Amino acid sequence: MSDDERSIRELIATWLAATKARDVDTVLSLIADDVVFLQPGRPEMRKGDFAAQARAQAAPGGPDIDATSDIQEIEVLGDWAFMWTKLSVVATPPGGGQSTKRAGHTLTILRKQAGKWRLARDANLLA
Amino acid sequence: MSDDERSIRELIATWLAATKARDVDTVLSLIADDVVFLQPGRPEMRKGDFAAQARAQAAPGGPDIDATSDIQEIEVLGDWAFMWTKLSVVATPPGGGQSTKRAGHTLTILRKQAGKWRLARDANLLA
Repeated sequence: MSDDERSIRELIATWLAATKARDVDTVLSLIADDVVFLQPGRPEMRKGDFAAQARAQAAPGGPDIDATSDIQEIEVLGDWAFMWTKLSVVATPPGGGQSTKRAGHTLTILRKQAGKWRLARDANLLA
Repeated sequence: MSDDERSIRELIATWLAATKARDVDTVLSLIADDVVFLQPGRPEMRKGDFAAQARAQAAPGGPDIDATSDIQEIEVLGDWAFMWTKLSVVATPPGGGQSTKRAGHTLTILRKQAGKWRLARDANLLA
């Protein structure tokens, strides 16, 4: 495994752990400023909108989020890379209500800037 | 606009025209052999499954497909590229029944092989 692939795998692990810990600042540090997030049935989302949504979810009263990512492929192309995964997200309401589970694929473009990999374009196909 | 970007735009125009014309062989010629297609709520699809589905749709009795693609970004990275679009697909049953329209984004990885661009990984977020 190359150093770049290892770094990208660490990025994903950090992302999932920070999401679970409601540590939005860490999640945002993993995202390029010109990021584009794509989801089914929704307009594209830029970093500011993503940050607002993440902070709302992470606030007290928001659900506990426990996600796992099964990386299917990482291809490094110089200072860019792409990756696709099988993602599973379990959301549990505060106080321990009924969890909901969503699963599906992601296809992500990453970019290395100042030696650090960040998410640059992301298609999230969770149904 | 670079020659590569122009070629990728031509690939998309050819794809849409061939789909409309039920010319599955032309569509398949635009796809890398190791392609992966990702869609919401479905398992990943490889070239053989895609071909079978395309031939079934293009057979007599299948719907007329009229799609338009509004390319938002193309980034060429040597022999690879990525692109995202706003895609709209109108399907009309044979004999002129009620059309259905679906719209959403795509995020696509392309690869240049033997001087020719082809689809390599594709996330289709149509709702």
